[in-house]
Formats: sequence, C-alpha cells, structure tokens
Amino acid sequence: MDVPFATVERIAKYLRCLKRIKNKKIKFISSQTLAEHTKVTAEQVRKDLAYFGKFGRTGTGYDVKKLVQKLEKILNPKQNWNACIVGAGALGHALTNYPDFKKAGFNITALFDSDPKKIGNKIGTVKIYDVKKFSVITEKKEIKIAIIATPENAKEEIEQLIAKSKIKGILNFTPATLSIKSRQKITVLDVDLSQKMYILSYLITQKKRRQ
Amino acid sequence: MDVPFATVERIAKYLRCLKRIKNKKIKFISSQTLAEHTKVTAEQVRKDLAYFGKFGRTGTGYDVKKLVQKLEKILNPKQNWNACIVGAGALGHALTNYPDFKKAGFNITALFDSDPKKIGNKIGTVKIYDVKKFSVITEKKEIKIAIIATPENAKEEIEQLIAKSKIKGILNFTPATLSIKSRQKITVLDVDLSQKMYILSYLITQKKRRQ
Repeated sequence: MDVPFATVERIAKYLRCLKRIKNKKIKFISSQTLAEHTKVTAEQVRKDLAYFGKFGRTGTGYDVKKLVQKLEKILNPKQNWNACIVGAGALGHALTNYPDFKKAGFNITALFDSDPKKIGNKIGTVKIYDVKKFSVITEKKEIKIAIIATPENAKEEIEQLIAKSKIKGILNFTPATLSIKSRQKITVLDVDLSQKMYILSYLITQKKRRQ
Repeated sequence: MDVPFATVERIAKYLRCLKRIKNKKIKFISSQTLAEHTKVTAEQVRKDLAYFGKFGRTGTGYDVKKLVQKLEKILNPKQNWNACIVGAGALGHALTNYPDFKKAGFNITALFDSDPKKIGNKIGTVKIYDVKKFSVITEKKEIKIAIIATPENAKEEIEQLIAKSKIKGILNFTPATLSIKSRQKITVLDVDLSQKMYILSYLITQKKRRQ
C-alpha cells in the first residue's frame, strides 16, 4: 500500500513524542493523548498507524515501549546508516556533533570540504576529506546518505559529485533547489529552518489576538 | 476560525515552494502542481488556502507573486522580528549566519552564552552577551523570539531565564523537552533534525523495495 508522505512525516513526529514519554517512564498512552502532544486529531493518529498494522488495545491504549520499537523499525528498518556531511563550516560542525543522529541510528563517518586549510582536520572524531574524493570515500565507507551544508553557490559542483556517486538519499540544508531531485535514483529532503520561524511567528501573533 | 496546526505547517511549506517557483520566473501555478511539489493532494491545497480567503481563478490557477505576498502576510504579519540565539557554539554560529532567517523577516540581534571566553566576542556582526543579562538585553533590544541552541544540560538555567523575560516564542533545537511549554504565555516549537533522517531512511528503503 502506498503510504502518503504526510503520514510518514507524522509517524516520525509520533516517534519523537513517544520517545520523550518513554523517558518519563510512562507505560501506556491513548491515541487522544498522543494526538494532543503532536497537535493532530486522535482519528488521524489511529488512521496513520493503521497503515502499518494493528497497535494498542481498546481501553489500555498503546504500549509506549513497544510502539517506539515498532515505529523505529518502520521508519528505519536498516537501523544503521553511514552518512556524510558536505561542508565543514559552522553548520557542518554543528550537525557532526548533533547527538540525536547517532541515537537514531545514523553515523556521520566523513566530512567533505574544498578548503585546503580544513582538509585533513577533524571535527570530533570525524575526518574532513577533499570534496574531490567524494565518490571514492563514500563508496569505501559505504555511505548512502549525504547531508548538504554548503553555501548556495557550491550547488552545481556538489550535484555533479553526488550524481556520480552511490548516494541514495540527501538531506539538503542549502536554500537552493537541487536539480538532482528529478533523478529517480536519489531521494532529496529539504530542510528549511525559516519555515519553522514562520510557523512560530503565526502562532505568537494568533495567541496575542486571542488575549 | 481556528486553523489546524497541520494547515499552518503546510502553508509554510507552500510558501517555501512558491518562493522557489517565483525565482524561476513562473507566473501562475495550479493547485495540482503546487500539490505535487509539496507532496500533498490538490484538494488539500485548496482546503488549506480556503481558511484564509479566496485565492486563484479557475483556469489560470494562482498568481505566484501575489500568493507569496499573501502567505507571507498570513504567517508573518509583523514582517520584522528581533530574535536572539542562546548558545554560541557551532549550532548557534550556524544559525546566526543562516541566510534565510533574514530574508523571512527575522533579525538575529543578540547571542547569549555562559562561557567567559566567548562573552564580548562577535559572530559576524552579532555580539555575544553574558546569558545572565538575558532579560535586560532582550528587553532593551525588543527581542521576542529566542532560538535555543545550547547543550541539553543547560536546560534548567535557560528555562528560568526565559520565564522571567518578555520572550513570546521559542525555537528549541535541544533534544530536551522544555517544561516552559505548559506556560500559556510562551509558544515553543521543537526542531528535531533526526526526524528528517527517519523520513529520509523510510523513503530510501521504500524506493529500493519497488525497484
């Protein structure tokens, strides 16, 4: 069955919420409570989960620990991905140290940059390689995911490098649209942080109006 | 009318997409095309926009430039927010230089840190202040939005500082849940980048299965 993209996005949101609840040692949760935490309706929660099987029991709700395991398996069946970051600037640095990537089963095992002053250095334990060696290093290290954290003007060079590599997925932090998107082989997800700022601005303004 | 949170999220997504299309000098877009770009249904696009008025004409579709202006006004009616970043580490550094914040009308006008070696320095043109002066500086600079980019263990100190300030909205990059969330006065939005990695992992695995 074809699962809508919006459902996949919400499943990831439920997972984040459930992990927090699990850390608070709460054992069961109703679809209603999960819905409130993730700002959707209880019906939506049940409908989304139904794509992947039957979870929870009427009356007791969902077993938090089991549901976390199941959703992790749905979203990340491989459990362990090697990933690299292109761009060893401030953003690349921050993402290399982002603790939740590792917890979620994504290991940053290489960084790439074109700056001779950076090449050969390390951020934490992760080495910075010459971006020209992208294909060779990613293949050798079995890296399938690339996180793009370069300035916008590096776009074309990066695209050509990735097109020639065995990368399967891209998390794109540059504001530029990657034209690689049209190529069926590679999945591209864009991260736009200003989108979050817009949502925040809307919510603040609405709250003010109601007061 | 109460607009669902999911609609606000999608409106922000449409806006991002429309801005890219505008940059390509495309003048009109159908709800169908906008839906394909943002991975929802055309019906969803029309339903979401209908919350905010009547846009577009049957046959010609939406005027891209006008729709961008209208959606920006819906999401960010104030147009100009002063924001600060708490935590002048790699992530704080990256976010200070994030070009799309300014383009969207959010000006980072102060950074805060507790490290005496950092206090007084600048990232770009933005000064790093002692986090102890949070309330005084944010009030003086009319800052209403705080971006939290500190390590998880700084959580409690930050919460106390924000609770005493006039901050209206928080963009939270730490994995910790802020207990400030329960306070009606402040809106908190969490950013979890591992969520995006999960979605990417799911999409890559699905694609492989279908091939």
